[in-house]
Amino acid sequence: MAMSNRVNRQWRLKSRPTGLIKPDNFEFVSEAIPEPAEAQLLIRSVYLSLDPAMRGWMVDRPSYVPPVQIGEVMRGLAVGLVEKSNHPKFSAGDRVQGMFGWQDYLLSNGEAVTKLPVNQLPFSAYLGLFGLVGLTSYAGLLEVGQPKAGETLLVSGAAGSVGSLVGQIGKIKGLRVVGIAGSDQKCNWLREELAFDAALNYKEANFKKELRAACPNGVDIYFENVGGEILETALYLMNTFGRVVACGMISLYNAIQPVPGPANFALVISKRLKIQGFIATDYSSKLKEMVSSFTEWYSSGQLKYRVDIVRGLEEAPVAINKLFDGSNQGKLMVQVSDPPLAT
Amino acid sequence: MAMSNRVNRQWRLKSRPTGLIKPDNFEFVSEAIPEPAEAQLLIRSVYLSLDPAMRGWMVDRPSYVPPVQIGEVMRGLAVGLVEKSNHPKFSAGDRVQGMFGWQDYLLSNGEAVTKLPVNQLPFSAYLGLFGLVGLTSYAGLLEVGQPKAGETLLVSGAAGSVGSLVGQIGKIKGLRVVGIAGSDQKCNWLREELAFDAALNYKEANFKKELRAACPNGVDIYFENVGGEILETALYLMNTFGRVVACGMISLYNAIQPVPGPANFALVISKRLKIQGFIATDYSSKLKEMVSSFTEWYSSGQLKYRVDIVRGLEEAPVAINKLFDGSNQGKLMVQVSDPPLAT
Repeated sequence: MAMSNRVNRQWRLKSRPTGLIKPDNFEFVSEAIPEPAEAQLLIRSVYLSLDPAMRGWMVDRPSYVPPVQIGEVMRGLAVGLVEKSNHPKFSAGDRVQGMFGWQDYLLSNGEAVTKLPVNQLPFSAYLGLFGLVGLTSYAGLLEVGQPKAGETLLVSGAAGSVGSLVGQIGKIKGLRVVGIAGSDQKCNWLREELAFDAALNYKEANFKKELRAACPNGVDIYFENVGGEILETALYLMNTFGRVVACGMISLYNAIQPVPGPANFALVISKRLKIQGFIATDYSSKLKEMVSSFTEWYSSGQLKYRVDIVRGLEEAPVAINKLFDGSNQGKLMVQVSDPPLAT
Repeated sequence: MAMSNRVNRQWRLKSRPTGLIKPDNFEFVSEAIPEPAEAQLLIRSVYLSLDPAMRGWMVDRPSYVPPVQIGEVMRGLAVGLVEKSNHPKFSAGDRVQGMFGWQDYLLSNGEAVTKLPVNQLPFSAYLGLFGLVGLTSYAGLLEVGQPKAGETLLVSGAAGSVGSLVGQIGKIKGLRVVGIAGSDQKCNWLREELAFDAALNYKEANFKKELRAACPNGVDIYFENVGGEILETALYLMNTFGRVVACGMISLYNAIQPVPGPANFALVISKRLKIQGFIATDYSSKLKEMVSSFTEWYSSGQLKYRVDIVRGLEEAPVAINKLFDGSNQGKLMVQVSDPPLAT
């Protein structure tokens, strides 16, 4: 196999970042590939997902999952193949997904390892369209946002892996969809390829004025991926009984000093807004429905997605900052080893 | 009648306040008491409610109601008596409630005038226990907050007219109730008279530490009356899937500069919080249920309330600042004229 290792390389957390993640926050170590004992399986990672939430997992504070401890292999969602199995429920060659971490191989007892259905899409689609990205978009917009046809949906981080799916689901559900992104190129892609009704570059001088013009009937749902000043701008545009789906606040993740919240927060009362935070895994019960809807919409050409694949596990600590400097285009992942040949 | 006027005195808005409301933001004028024409009625105001929301109505910006215009009689909820009626649905002596404004008399066509049931409570109870204060407390906690017995409820502005009712409803519903107020005297009242489980003075040096200790199981519902720094403190204490009932943000109403929102706003996501603003009148359908529950709880001694009655319409522009300097104790109102004799 062209790309698979004879040792198990691991990125272990060495120190907690201040501001952006730096390569020396990690230590790159190698150990022998472990052998599965009775009732164990050995998983070879193929694609490792790089996600904004990882920045939070590196900080030692209470959150929805415990922080990664110093010396531990960095946590990460990945898809891979079962390499060897002594486990009754898994066979060599099975496609699997789970928190395999920033490493080549994982020895597992099968807990929290999900077998993936074989489909005709590239192997990377398990992270690029399905998986957490898909569930976050699907459940966030439909379950938390409760959209009604004809409403206006505003999406920040719209060219990101979640934002671009959210906007397309919005179009399928009959919403007016307005996206916010950080470059003209991304905005063009949203308008021309994904059929957003409008897409605005928040770095432009006239951004606020143009945003207001792009939402002539105000905003009913704001899908929040970035936080900070854009949240404040969105609150001004919200309609009475509007909903803010709080998915991420990427602008805050690397902040060294606390960033003040929106100064117009009292609008929550006068406009009777509902601001609701969520985590995709709270909606695991919707996974099957999401896979079925996405498969249908993808096949009919209504849903498009992009992946941004960086080759080589050794690149992970540098590549992750593409999420924070706005340079990634599509779902960011690291190719750890070769995917199976196209089926 | 000891206290009723032979002219109709009116406080009209003269200029918009910057910071605290000042008497010279209003003009005190007198006009002849109008005579009801066919299908009209003349209402004599008895008690005029003074509410934090009035500060917002004086500002020229879009909100849930249009701002009071310069030259208009200041808006205000009041209870009164029908003095004369040529309207088929009203008779002289009827007890009525509505937006009668800061004046002695109102000529009305009967629209948006609610007839009040006769009860055994003092006339001021229509504003002190029922009316908007009651509905705000009842619907805010039960409909927006969705409490479950055993949960912890944190209330800010707890000694205020809304906060004190919210805490007591919480106790009746089996919650652990922790109040925040601005003086030791208020805190003692909450603990000793209203049976709050804990009450803390936010001006004390150890406030944050004591608050944490008073909420050993975290906070499931935060009933928000004040905004600003206390909101930020509360977000740190919220449990996963906690609810923030956004009722008021009195600390912001007189701010001249924008006040930053909570710097820990991203906790909304990791804790999956729901922050929901509301206005009592959105829940008018619950009014009857509220009156029936409150009457039962009040009669059985489970619900107590206080009123803070300032005598004389001429005092209104000064008295309203008692809401913002923390000096009022109980529902603040102005006695405009004599109530009917006890029934």
